[in-house]
Amino acid sequence: MRILSSELSRHIGDTVHLEGWLHKKRLLGGLTFINLRDRGGIVQAVIKEKQEVDKLKGLHTGTVLALDGKAQAEPRAPSGVELHDVKLNVLVPVTSEPLIEIDKPLSHKPDNLDTLFEYRAIGLRNQFESRIFLVRSILLKLIREFLYSHDFVEINSPKLVANAAEGGAEVFKLDYFGKTASLAQSPQLYKQVMVGVFERVFEIGPAFRAEPSATTRHVSEVTMLDIEMAFIRDHEEVLTLIQDLLYSVLTKVWKEHGEILRGLNAPEPVLKPKFPRYSMGQIHRLYEQANNVDMSGEIDLTPDEERWICEYAKEHDGSEAVFATDLPRSKMKFYHMAKDENTVFSADLLFRGLELATCPQREHRYDQLVEQMQAAGISTDDPAYAFYLQAFRHGLPPHGGCGFGIDRLVEKVVGLGNIKEAILFPRDINRLTP
Amino acid sequence: MRILSSELSRHIGDTVHLEGWLHKKRLLGGLTFINLRDRGGIVQAVIKEKQEVDKLKGLHTGTVLALDGKAQAEPRAPSGVELHDVKLNVLVPVTSEPLIEIDKPLSHKPDNLDTLFEYRAIGLRNQFESRIFLVRSILLKLIREFLYSHDFVEINSPKLVANAAEGGAEVFKLDYFGKTASLAQSPQLYKQVMVGVFERVFEIGPAFRAEPSATTRHVSEVTMLDIEMAFIRDHEEVLTLIQDLLYSVLTKVWKEHGEILRGLNAPEPVLKPKFPRYSMGQIHRLYEQANNVDMSGEIDLTPDEERWICEYAKEHDGSEAVFATDLPRSKMKFYHMAKDENTVFSADLLFRGLELATCPQREHRYDQLVEQMQAAGISTDDPAYAFYLQAFRHGLPPHGGCGFGIDRLVEKVVGLGNIKEAILFPRDINRLTP
Repeated sequence: MRILSSELSRHIGDTVHLEGWLHKKRLLGGLTFINLRDRGGIVQAVIKEKQEVDKLKGLHTGTVLALDGKAQAEPRAPSGVELHDVKLNVLVPVTSEPLIEIDKPLSHKPDNLDTLFEYRAIGLRNQFESRIFLVRSILLKLIREFLYSHDFVEINSPKLVANAAEGGAEVFKLDYFGKTASLAQSPQLYKQVMVGVFERVFEIGPAFRAEPSATTRHVSEVTMLDIEMAFIRDHEEVLTLIQDLLYSVLTKVWKEHGEILRGLNAPEPVLKPKFPRYSMGQIHRLYEQANNVDMSGEIDLTPDEERWICEYAKEHDGSEAVFATDLPRSKMKFYHMAKDENTVFSADLLFRGLELATCPQREHRYDQLVEQMQAAGISTDDPAYAFYLQAFRHGLPPHGGCGFGIDRLVEKVVGLGNIKEAILFPRDINRLTP
Repeated sequence: MRILSSELSRHIGDTVHLEGWLHKKRLLGGLTFINLRDRGGIVQAVIKEKQEVDKLKGLHTGTVLALDGKAQAEPRAPSGVELHDVKLNVLVPVTSEPLIEIDKPLSHKPDNLDTLFEYRAIGLRNQFESRIFLVRSILLKLIREFLYSHDFVEINSPKLVANAAEGGAEVFKLDYFGKTASLAQSPQLYKQVMVGVFERVFEIGPAFRAEPSATTRHVSEVTMLDIEMAFIRDHEEVLTLIQDLLYSVLTKVWKEHGEILRGLNAPEPVLKPKFPRYSMGQIHRLYEQANNVDMSGEIDLTPDEERWICEYAKEHDGSEAVFATDLPRSKMKFYHMAKDENTVFSADLLFRGLELATCPQREHRYDQLVEQMQAAGISTDDPAYAFYLQAFRHGLPPHGGCGFGIDRLVEKVVGLGNIKEAILFPRDINRLTP
């Protein structure tokens, strides 16, 4: 009966059976020490008998092993326990030299990212890399738990759509049985329609942007959390839900999985249950005062302002999360609700200098929506929008929501420098493999 | 403070505030009865005062209303409670005539499916339709809970890939910044690589098949549950996990949400914890004996045999779920493990006459895999496979898993006749909207 390396300390004195990968092998004072990796972690085994040591001759990291031995307390071992009197069985031999060393942290310097992804299939076996994606899986789980407990229904909207122009970015197009299909940039239209059914819906899925830019923020395939909720009293109700979601998820992930995060040297978040809210105008003025830079020409926040206001709020409000509210109408999409002639009922959720989500209220009034679509140059006769307009013509209540970047969240929770490091197999203008 | 219709029976005698959609309006003995729909369900309200009734003049189904009134026990009302002394407030008026009647079951006859999808945005507001997708959301939740509790890590693999040929079906292709990308048919290669990291991984996401056929089983975009697990002792361990997953999910959904399923007239499953296993050869022979049809020329199971063996197992074994084992090598993909010269370590999970999942063990030995790839006409120098071969060259343990059709599961759990009815916005050769 196999036990995991993480269970070994409960078996001190027992003879146990482990299976895993040879992670490291070294000779020390006539003894062979090996690190065995399994899904529980890494455990050290001491191999004394020559006939056992010989079984590893010519075999490299990755070799799949079964070990039978005695669990023994060993204060000098990282987990306080070691495997002794080991009988070794090679399940899958690896005779190829390692491509990269995975028992040490891999470089995440910008120049090394291409190498990181080139050897991704192996590099992810490094404990630091794998923990990033363990955290990612945990975050997804906590997000879903929060949403279920708040009466949200999970939906799956189509990724092949007739028209994906609503997202604003460039669109991937393809031949669809003789028609032209687009890859969905977001479930925007579908989730709005679905609040007419369930009031509260969410989706976690891929979104596609033909981003021709190569930055630390952009990839062509992202994982988005899309949330939409109806019967809101005001825009603030949307912000409160998203604030509560992020606060709950970050608090829980640190409370329940702090060990993994500390193993990643992730910075513990500075947060309060209520995130500060600053209007765009306020941020421009505060930034101007602090940095002696004239921001009067800027409409949107610059990336530098996004970083600065998060630093400011951390010091001033004790929060690394900030809402930048009253976004300008220049950022308005046809489905947003205008607040006045200059601003939209929309806010960006910033965390540690990065925009994680845009959180608008939607225009739910049919006539007003049609006007805004037409002003945006969209034909209301376009068959791609027929179902969308149906839903409004037959009654949608006030609603709002957000598109929340899961990759960006992971990046910032772990403390990485580039969105790609938070994606298993990232896609950008130059990269379609692995 | 808003309460939901489902909470009304706890407030008998109280004055309450409800918000929702006008679902139905009728006059009876000088009174106006309306059904109000919200995410809790439907509640009946009795409107007496002329000035309140007048507010609804010219307004149709879908009108968004706020109702203040007194909750009153009423044995004749469907939920045993009604709203009386109603003050009515129109939040969003609907002046358009209904496109379809949503207070009655919508037709799911094959001839009517086009109409069903044409008015999908509205039709989903019907209680029968929405319950299908409530069940779907619950099934997804239960599947994830099972997998988390069995140490599986959730992954997100890319949907834009360099080569998606491994799936066997036709592939959608698109221009990717001057290169040709394919839409992933499955996370097959990625999930196998990821068992080298986490041992046990799963993904629930879209998969794309350029299916030129128009059947009740095929759509071009499906939601797949992909599972992969390593350090298996044998193929049987894979089947056991998938069996336990389905048994656990079906048992729980009926135990915890039986009311919703009964509201859908869903048939209660006939299952035992251990699903019967019949080899393909056995199924051919049993079918031949029972039906006097010569099956000696058939390699694969015919759809009729799939239906028949499920009926047979239901009667004979008390199980509507069956594993058809020892699939023929004609169905073998390059990444499957051969059992002998005729058969593969693979089994189809059939439920109520439909294949829900194919559950093979994988070929984990590098040299053998390379041989099988070459035999399948795949160049091992193809850069699209470089990362995949890396993982095997550097050690993957015995592993297996399945691709499990979520849409098919929903179809069969609810008791629908066509996979499209289980998808919010289905895609097929003729349909790219809504």
